[in-house]
Amino acid sequence: MEKGVIITDAIDVKNVGEDLGDVIGAGRKLNVIISDDADSVLAETGADIALVAIATSLDTIFPHVKKCLEAGLNVITTSEEASYAWTSSPGLAAKLDRIAKENGVTFTGSGMQDVFWANMVTNLTGASHRIDSIEGQVSINIDKFPAFVADYYVVGRKAADIREMIENGEKLPIGDEVVCLRMDLENQISDLGLTTKSIKEMVEPIILDHDIKSKVLKGTIPAGDVIGLDNTIEIETEEGILFRAMQTAKVYQPDEIDINEWWIKGEPNIHVRNDNPPTLLGTSSQIVNRIPDVINAEPGYVTIDQLPKLTCKIRSLEHYLK
Amino acid sequence: MEKGVIITDAIDVKNVGEDLGDVIGAGRKLNVIISDDADSVLAETGADIALVAIATSLDTIFPHVKKCLEAGLNVITTSEEASYAWTSSPGLAAKLDRIAKENGVTFTGSGMQDVFWANMVTNLTGASHRIDSIEGQVSINIDKFPAFVADYYVVGRKAADIREMIENGEKLPIGDEVVCLRMDLENQISDLGLTTKSIKEMVEPIILDHDIKSKVLKGTIPAGDVIGLDNTIEIETEEGILFRAMQTAKVYQPDEIDINEWWIKGEPNIHVRNDNPPTLLGTSSQIVNRIPDVINAEPGYVTIDQLPKLTCKIRSLEHYLK
Repeated sequence: MEKGVIITDAIDVKNVGEDLGDVIGAGRKLNVIISDDADSVLAETGADIALVAIATSLDTIFPHVKKCLEAGLNVITTSEEASYAWTSSPGLAAKLDRIAKENGVTFTGSGMQDVFWANMVTNLTGASHRIDSIEGQVSINIDKFPAFVADYYVVGRKAADIREMIENGEKLPIGDEVVCLRMDLENQISDLGLTTKSIKEMVEPIILDHDIKSKVLKGTIPAGDVIGLDNTIEIETEEGILFRAMQTAKVYQPDEIDINEWWIKGEPNIHVRNDNPPTLLGTSSQIVNRIPDVINAEPGYVTIDQLPKLTCKIRSLEHYLK
Repeated sequence: MEKGVIITDAIDVKNVGEDLGDVIGAGRKLNVIISDDADSVLAETGADIALVAIATSLDTIFPHVKKCLEAGLNVITTSEEASYAWTSSPGLAAKLDRIAKENGVTFTGSGMQDVFWANMVTNLTGASHRIDSIEGQVSINIDKFPAFVADYYVVGRKAADIREMIENGEKLPIGDEVVCLRMDLENQISDLGLTTKSIKEMVEPIILDHDIKSKVLKGTIPAGDVIGLDNTIEIETEEGILFRAMQTAKVYQPDEIDINEWWIKGEPNIHVRNDNPPTLLGTSSQIVNRIPDVINAEPGYVTIDQLPKLTCKIRSLEHYLK
């Protein structure tokens, strides 16, 4: 709202019938009543764009995005997979592309990945003469997230059990939720005009040789038990450039901070590092700053690598509409 | 040449009559003979773009750029001032803009600043909800440059003499050559759609409390004598956002490396750091990677903040022409 956005409607299955202002703690009534009847809301809405913030996988958000596009709304989503779904869910991606084009609107996935894990990295390749590999390392502190995230990352479980599950090819609780860094590498690959050849995903439990206290577990994790997971994605391209990224999600020791760090190896070598990247607030700011770009874009499923360079919208968003 | 560029002509006042391949150490003849007769070369050239690599100030390069534009060539230059000359040299900037438009070609200044000091920073503001200030720190090792650079930065001189010169408002040998960070801040200000209100430049000699060896001086600089300069630029904008950057140019101690570091302060705080940024090779790669963007751009004086996001051109540059 501080960027001149007028929130016209709100759809959810929780807090139905309540004023959105009360629910989000805006300090005043917004005179927008949360509804669980999406069809009625979308049939009558005067909005330009819908923000769909529901889940990571395109499969889960597909029916919701489809409804919004068919109602003639542009859609921006926090779904990590939507950041680049052309190889992970090509059928759904193509369907949403077709529906968006038929309705003259645009569908885009943005969030923390937009600047930090995709576009900042490809922008830095502007100083590359030759690229051999692009390698990234992202870390998050599980103690800062709700308890279900710690469950996803098998925090507090026996390392031997988790290794056995991995060896037997069993799905860990995290399941398909760790698609984010894969999508970021695919955003980069698309941006540089390269072609994916093979994709490899690896997961490793992280252990310590000493006990560590965990806020989210409200207790101590003994030495040798799992404090989190290292998830690595490796993508080879037809052009011979290797893309590799590791997401470390674990309970931090007192002196550790979030890091986003990338190396573009080749001629020359390029290094970039963000200390304490703003994972939560940065996600919402990037979504808001992207709104005019999405409304301005050509109709279809347009990924963040194809949009203009994202910058802070200093003025009211209306100022940036074409 | 590794990006499919055909070098058609070469103009210089040195090495006249020699083959360009011999002069640049290409390992073979390029069958391009260096000429000092710019008018004849430009009258007959079939080139699409001229790379003008002569000097920092727009005043110095102006007649050369003008000739190239009038010959119907797009121009890309390493001139730091050309990166954003609308406030430092508005008359010359407007003249070149007019000449470029009249001839249907584009004039752009690029180099190390393109990604590292301008566009990477503004791209990171894409995660900003509110910006209070953008602050940068760039360092270079004078021992890695030719001796005249050490003279520019008054290396080895008495700190008291330099402080007296600064207090008396005398020009230091570096003169107008330290315009680069100013231009980068102005690129950022332009990119974010802000308006410059005031510009302040400050210079401080750097001293140590112990002796230090200097390669370029071929000797030792005693404790208390100048090992380099801190140059600070501070720009206030009408919108209240402060831009501040310091360039440290000095003789390094053995454990020091080049750093490019920026802080975007506000909500949230954003930090970015490049260790060992590729100042020399990165300059040439960014110039080469920009060539298609400059040829594709609308006619006129187009600054790097207005061009598309710079990325490595993996294929032959021809592939990226519209």
